[in-house]
Amino acid sequence: MNPTDLKKPIHVMKFGGTSVATPSLIQNAAQRIADRRKSGVHVVCVVSAMGDTTDNLMSLARQISERPPNRELDVLLSAGEVQSMALLSMALQEIGIAARSFTGSQGGIRTDTQHSEARILHIDPDRIVSALAKDEVVVLAGFQGHDERDEITTLGRGGSDTSAVAMAAALGAELCEILTDVTGVYSADPRIVDGARQIESLGYDEMLEMANLGARVLHGRSVEMARRFEVPLVVASSTRNTPGTRIVGKETDMEKVEIRAVTDDRNVKKISLVSVPDTPGVAANIFGALGELGVNVRLIVQAQSHAGNNDITFVVPGDTHIDQQQLDDLVKQVGGENWIVDERIALLNIIGEGISREPGIAGSIFRILADQQINLDLISSSNLVITCVVSEEDLVRGTRALHEGLIETDAS
Amino acid sequence: MNPTDLKKPIHVMKFGGTSVATPSLIQNAAQRIADRRKSGVHVVCVVSAMGDTTDNLMSLARQISERPPNRELDVLLSAGEVQSMALLSMALQEIGIAARSFTGSQGGIRTDTQHSEARILHIDPDRIVSALAKDEVVVLAGFQGHDERDEITTLGRGGSDTSAVAMAAALGAELCEILTDVTGVYSADPRIVDGARQIESLGYDEMLEMANLGARVLHGRSVEMARRFEVPLVVASSTRNTPGTRIVGKETDMEKVEIRAVTDDRNVKKISLVSVPDTPGVAANIFGALGELGVNVRLIVQAQSHAGNNDITFVVPGDTHIDQQQLDDLVKQVGGENWIVDERIALLNIIGEGISREPGIAGSIFRILADQQINLDLISSSNLVITCVVSEEDLVRGTRALHEGLIETDAS
Repeated sequence: MNPTDLKKPIHVMKFGGTSVATPSLIQNAAQRIADRRKSGVHVVCVVSAMGDTTDNLMSLARQISERPPNRELDVLLSAGEVQSMALLSMALQEIGIAARSFTGSQGGIRTDTQHSEARILHIDPDRIVSALAKDEVVVLAGFQGHDERDEITTLGRGGSDTSAVAMAAALGAELCEILTDVTGVYSADPRIVDGARQIESLGYDEMLEMANLGARVLHGRSVEMARRFEVPLVVASSTRNTPGTRIVGKETDMEKVEIRAVTDDRNVKKISLVSVPDTPGVAANIFGALGELGVNVRLIVQAQSHAGNNDITFVVPGDTHIDQQQLDDLVKQVGGENWIVDERIALLNIIGEGISREPGIAGSIFRILADQQINLDLISSSNLVITCVVSEEDLVRGTRALHEGLIETDAS
Repeated sequence: MNPTDLKKPIHVMKFGGTSVATPSLIQNAAQRIADRRKSGVHVVCVVSAMGDTTDNLMSLARQISERPPNRELDVLLSAGEVQSMALLSMALQEIGIAARSFTGSQGGIRTDTQHSEARILHIDPDRIVSALAKDEVVVLAGFQGHDERDEITTLGRGGSDTSAVAMAAALGAELCEILTDVTGVYSADPRIVDGARQIESLGYDEMLEMANLGARVLHGRSVEMARRFEVPLVVASSTRNTPGTRIVGKETDMEKVEIRAVTDDRNVKKISLVSVPDTPGVAANIFGALGELGVNVRLIVQAQSHAGNNDITFVVPGDTHIDQQQLDDLVKQVGGENWIVDERIALLNIIGEGISREPGIAGSIFRILADQQINLDLISSSNLVITCVVSEEDLVRGTRALHEGLIETDAS
């Protein structure tokens, strides 16, 4: 049976760990699903592990081994989602809704063999479609799959969002809803900026930049997949019945440049390689070597310091493992003089489709920050985002000022 | 590849929940397995869920539903063993032992579809044999399997012991060792009887009676399977290196009657149906009806009370669900007058192969109990066991007196 043979449209609803952290939250989620089903759609829900479960399992593993083998870590962590899926299915049946839980393997989520950060290769949704055809609600464990040898794999960070979007794509779902502990995507972190407002709708590309630049609400990977398969995404509250933020293919007005959000990210550090000879291929050497170390580079700036020598600076996630010996080797390899690591920096990102096409915007940004006596360490821009590297202590002030100057004034 | 192609004999080592309750106990278990492996054998270990894990999962389920559906309960509980198997495999690898964990499904434990008390239909040990051939230690989740539709099933009470014995049978293992929090099988409960001593070896039949009659160390079902497939069983401590109790096919001296143990069981209740007409088939009606109610009858006594009418009395496990309406219906159906339930009774069991062949033994038992002014409510005997139903308050005194009079004197 094909998903297209089903008589009703399919909605995928993904519940994050905080949304299923206790039995009563699980019961809330079940009621939410029941209401949705009553509106005349098939529901596939995807669940994360309850609350701290994953952290607790990790802590058990670390008590046994500093570096637990990835295969067994995947087996261990997969148990978390198996618990929550069974409990949610019970809660649905308790209120009279036919339901059936599926592990990643049972749900046909086939991945590659890369334990702890497996990629989904394809989905065989036969069993899920059969359950939907019997008008059962499907409860699928997020974050997990199985490889060709029937080994349990997990999908790494943001894995449950990715499971949800992938399943929505495979089923041709009308909607994929990410239900979480916030009510939607905000124009800035509401804990920092009082005037932060919820965004009604965003393009995939804008959401992708936001996800990659500090907005913790959705993982970039799931947004990429949603974009590729044109899955309509909604981010909304799991407990409140408010509209949330829609993430859609294209905003209607292609030409209008609108600043959507200011995001802040303090979980970064800056690494500079000092006085690197400016020879062809040197950047390729550096970033090739960093790639081999598994370092994910977020921002690269090359500045000429004196004749023939450049300082090459890059920003990496704050939890990147790179030790002094590795940096020494890197500097030596490219003939540089020295390296400097600065952990006291942060990123301010201003996001909006076409933002760097509009020269006035960059000017406004720099003027607002200058008025705050905030020094810009590095600047980078793309079609979608302008990123400023600032001192950590300037981050909150800068975020507030930019939000007020660029977004709050715009609304008035 | 067949198990018989392996070059070394196989030992199955089963660790119960208390033996893997903490990371450090899991590390102890790993060391124990490593030592065994060094002795030149392949090791397959079977693990239960850590400590209270199963109880905690049950409690979550009960917060959501009074009667959680069995399919989802199996899914939920299976997560417990998946956790402990992953952690034990990590602990082995941490001390340099190649190891690989297997869920029930991955280990080829195929069961029927009876959720929450599935029976093992057969075992396909291919993947396990391949792992052993690579000299890996196999860590198998106990208590779980999968049915023909790849649904997760659990084996019910004593399930992990059953998994271990079944796997030992399928692999033609040299030994199946049940490692637990006691050092072996005792001649009486050491918490009650000071002189209780560890039994060196027992026949399958004797162990089976003991398991069914209150010795909590092994579940009867696993002993039955061990007997059927002639799997050599050992019950021993998971933390101490002491010999334990061997359970073997036949004791050497076929003719000697030896009293092996006195077990006590207070988790029972007695039900009497009063003045039931003595017509042919009445007992069959009663016990047929009880079977339909799922009531497991432990002991049946029919006593003539007055002309043509009998009192029919039976003993059932203390947690048996049978309500007043069901008893009323039962009495009505067989034309009886009334029913009486007595929960304040207990069973005293005296166990030894051939025990009722030796008339002197029954006499000794009754004399010892009479000396203690203990009234015998009912008596039942088989080739292996003499069971006395006594008042709950006489149980401890009776157990001590019988152990002293029948076993401790015998040793002197």
